[in-house]
Amino acid sequence: MTDTTRERIIMAGAELIHARGFNNTGIKEIVETAGVPKGSFYFYFSSKEAFGLAVVDQYEATFLERLHALATETSLSPLDRLRAFFERTQQRFASQGYSRGCPLGNLAQEMGDLSPAFQERLERAMRHLTRILADLLQQAVDAGELDTAELGPHPLEEIAFFIVEAWHGALVRMKSAKSGEPLDICRRMIFERVLRRPL
Amino acid sequence: MTDTTRERIIMAGAELIHARGFNNTGIKEIVETAGVPKGSFYFYFSSKEAFGLAVVDQYEATFLERLHALATETSLSPLDRLRAFFERTQQRFASQGYSRGCPLGNLAQEMGDLSPAFQERLERAMRHLTRILADLLQQAVDAGELDTAELGPHPLEEIAFFIVEAWHGALVRMKSAKSGEPLDICRRMIFERVLRRPL
Repeated sequence: MTDTTRERIIMAGAELIHARGFNNTGIKEIVETAGVPKGSFYFYFSSKEAFGLAVVDQYEATFLERLHALATETSLSPLDRLRAFFERTQQRFASQGYSRGCPLGNLAQEMGDLSPAFQERLERAMRHLTRILADLLQQAVDAGELDTAELGPHPLEEIAFFIVEAWHGALVRMKSAKSGEPLDICRRMIFERVLRRPL
Repeated sequence: MTDTTRERIIMAGAELIHARGFNNTGIKEIVETAGVPKGSFYFYFSSKEAFGLAVVDQYEATFLERLHALATETSLSPLDRLRAFFERTQQRFASQGYSRGCPLGNLAQEMGDLSPAFQERLERAMRHLTRILADLLQQAVDAGELDTAELGPHPLEEIAFFIVEAWHGALVRMKSAKSGEPLDICRRMIFERVLRRPL
């Protein structure tokens, strides 16, 4: 058994958990989807929870990759990078029938009360992603695209925090609406009401 | 077996599902908590899904009761009623260690992709609650507490939709943050940025 086996188990689990939830996904299903023997699961992971935490690492890494790719698109202004992030995310969800939602938000909802290890790990990931968004907003301020006077008494960290939260909420609503309407409304409100800039 | 038995099963299930999720709650657990014989479950409900939909009815009824009680507090202005709704909700979550979150949002997240019956029922409940909030905002406009010119081109229904979504997102984040910070930030941003009124 190689590191590739471990990765295959994580990738299969990340897909299944994103689609069906953590408690609703069995280890048997995960190893079958990964195409590895059942015994290999407990060779790499001491428990289903330990495995779940490795899946959170994987989700966070995927987000960081996307955000890093976005940061290198220097042809786009900071605020246009934020617009592009939302647009691309919405296109991805449109292409999959407005299902699944945010893998980190889903687990925060499902596991936040049930496992302190998940709760702490997820909160760390959220804070990390929020900080990256706050940095992007700071770049928009530095580039003259956002005016701190217009943003009122709210520090950029708080605005970033709210944007992440509101987007999570829109992704939950998307799962019952089964349309892009919640994401459209959320993007408009974030830009036009919160940031006071055109979408 | 009486209607009280049915109600006891629903109330026990509503609590357990709110605390642990739908897929993570077994029928055995529900009937034990309700203190009724296992056979009575299938006497009243044709399936676990049919039961879950009755629990959604229960959640919606609880919300409607709270909103109705709020509507009768005519000593409060419309916007003060909205402030009071958020404050009381936050106090309730503070008293239970910032756990559980929104029972309807939780199920939308967990079941929106897994069961069309849940997805449609939850979306109907969301639209109902959003319409009540839009009516309250309209009352605030009529009372001169909100200025539609300041609200820009956004219809009140869209603003209400966004407020419900953002609050859902804050309730998800609350479950990983285990603090009132996400709710504090959300309330401030909804009032100060979206509605342009003090919290």
